[in-house]
Amino acid sequence: MGSSKRLPQDFQSYQQKIERELKEIIGSNPLTFYDMLRYHMGWQDEQGYSYHRESGKFVRPLLCLLSCQAVGGDAVRIMPAAAALELIHNFSLIHDDIQDASCERHHRPTVWKIWGQSQAINAGDAMFALAFSALFRLKYNGIKEQRVMAASQLLNEACLKLCEGQYLDIAYQSRLDVTIKDYLDMIAKKTAALMAASTAIGTCLAVDNDKMVDSFYGFGEELGMAYQIQDDMLGIWGKEEEIGKPVKDDISQGKKTLPVVYAFENCKDSDRKKLEEIYSQEVISSENVAMVMEILGRSGARRYGQKLIQQYHRQALAMLGVSGLDLSRQAPLKEIASFLLECDY
Amino acid sequence: MGSSKRLPQDFQSYQQKIERELKEIIGSNPLTFYDMLRYHMGWQDEQGYSYHRESGKFVRPLLCLLSCQAVGGDAVRIMPAAAALELIHNFSLIHDDIQDASCERHHRPTVWKIWGQSQAINAGDAMFALAFSALFRLKYNGIKEQRVMAASQLLNEACLKLCEGQYLDIAYQSRLDVTIKDYLDMIAKKTAALMAASTAIGTCLAVDNDKMVDSFYGFGEELGMAYQIQDDMLGIWGKEEEIGKPVKDDISQGKKTLPVVYAFENCKDSDRKKLEEIYSQEVISSENVAMVMEILGRSGARRYGQKLIQQYHRQALAMLGVSGLDLSRQAPLKEIASFLLECDY
Repeated sequence: MGSSKRLPQDFQSYQQKIERELKEIIGSNPLTFYDMLRYHMGWQDEQGYSYHRESGKFVRPLLCLLSCQAVGGDAVRIMPAAAALELIHNFSLIHDDIQDASCERHHRPTVWKIWGQSQAINAGDAMFALAFSALFRLKYNGIKEQRVMAASQLLNEACLKLCEGQYLDIAYQSRLDVTIKDYLDMIAKKTAALMAASTAIGTCLAVDNDKMVDSFYGFGEELGMAYQIQDDMLGIWGKEEEIGKPVKDDISQGKKTLPVVYAFENCKDSDRKKLEEIYSQEVISSENVAMVMEILGRSGARRYGQKLIQQYHRQALAMLGVSGLDLSRQAPLKEIASFLLECDY
Repeated sequence: MGSSKRLPQDFQSYQQKIERELKEIIGSNPLTFYDMLRYHMGWQDEQGYSYHRESGKFVRPLLCLLSCQAVGGDAVRIMPAAAALELIHNFSLIHDDIQDASCERHHRPTVWKIWGQSQAINAGDAMFALAFSALFRLKYNGIKEQRVMAASQLLNEACLKLCEGQYLDIAYQSRLDVTIKDYLDMIAKKTAALMAASTAIGTCLAVDNDKMVDSFYGFGEELGMAYQIQDDMLGIWGKEEEIGKPVKDDISQGKKTLPVVYAFENCKDSDRKKLEEIYSQEVISSENVAMVMEILGRSGARRYGQKLIQQYHRQALAMLGVSGLDLSRQAPLKEIASFLLECDY
């Protein structure tokens, strides 16, 4: 999700390289199975004909490549790792769409909507496996096995957290007592873990320096927290054409996003009672979505969310500072952080 | 699936070690998320209380450990790899049960039946990730990184084939023109690939000898083909208490298992017409299941299947012979192959 603004010019050249790498991995395998993956990536239409949608922002790959470059590594050599991160992200999107029964992504029907749930489960599973295939390509680029192993471990741990976070996200949907702390724990796993892995992997593939890797991990993690909170805000107050799916889906699905959790904890009693009533229902009707919007509007959730994003943004930069790198080397990472977080929310 | 007969005595000590390793990996993580995994493994009931069902046969781990031992390796040291294979197998079972809408496994409700499809997708995904966590534990047992990487690649390639095989299995359900060749291609991916990875991984963790690894890969692959064909036969002519799920499920789900594919290709015209009629329906009624059984019975499919199992069994032993190992070293692998394939079918 996030804004549809264009990335700074010098990041765009990376995007093409990432896309090329992804195409090599998902490739021209003749099995029709891979059509689902190519469709999901936006390279084919549902009949298998060539299709082009503007490619994704590749947030995680970019974080990986910029981190590598910041510590003096050769970003082009670790392109397979960048691709692996994007594949894991897309594995989770494909399964997520099934779980949330989401019918659209980037203004197109989701994979399960076209091929059915069973095949979409397979498509997601394959995306997961391909991420590791991608990582193993690193050795052909002359990356030491020890570093590839370290990167694989970081990626795998992030995947596990991602599953745990998904579990909590779904479990929270049927709970009325989710606290801000519960919420932050959930997004740390669901979103921040993979972004932390992105910056950490970029670093660990370039240097043997655990402290440096830790500091970059922290940067990605804090940034990931801010990014998810912003995503939650956009899901309620964003513009539909920017986020590529219907605004308010989060509300109708009963998601415990930040504004909702905040309102539950902080709105006045009569509003909380109303929220409890609405969120006890299996499906939230459009009138009730409007009512929730009203309550969120007067709860102070928007201001709270904005402050929280700023706080995590600051913490991210502080973690980057811990690395002890020259400010000039930190600059591109600061730039992408600002880019990712400067949406209107 | 397979028979419920007990394994030879000396394999049973391995089973306990495999189970111990699996318990360490899935562990005592307090997150309720892992309850789904522990339930699936048969260690907990659905409320999270301790439960004990006789543990699985651990076919793939055993093949891995016995292969390692056959080439002179230390099986106990590679226990994490054995566990990884079982975790991948179980990842596929959890997703498989969702895809097939199977309500029971080992006489208990399946994970999705209790926790719902969305959470079962997460449970399967986590099982997948944990398999790689398991493999990465090998380095703490003093296995060289290069070998761990080789094993990871073998496992990952098997996972990808597994997804492709699952895809074909489901796609075939709505087709009436599946040939024996199509069928064999599908089971090579769905089943034989992981069994081949099991024997190959056990070997590659013990010796740096590509030819030896290839020969063990071939052994596992041929054995896997025979094992799946036997599974298909049991799904139609087996005893319910032996296979742990309702016999004839395969038929009512419209699966293109070997006997069905054979009958389609070889039965007399009137029977084929009847089969086409039945298999064109969305759901196959119990009367129609009985009719299919009758047709399969007179098609010669049973005899054909038995011959095919024997053929793959012979080919498996031939591949083992290619290894050039002493006959005494080959013996335990021959023994497990016979054990796995000597069910009544």
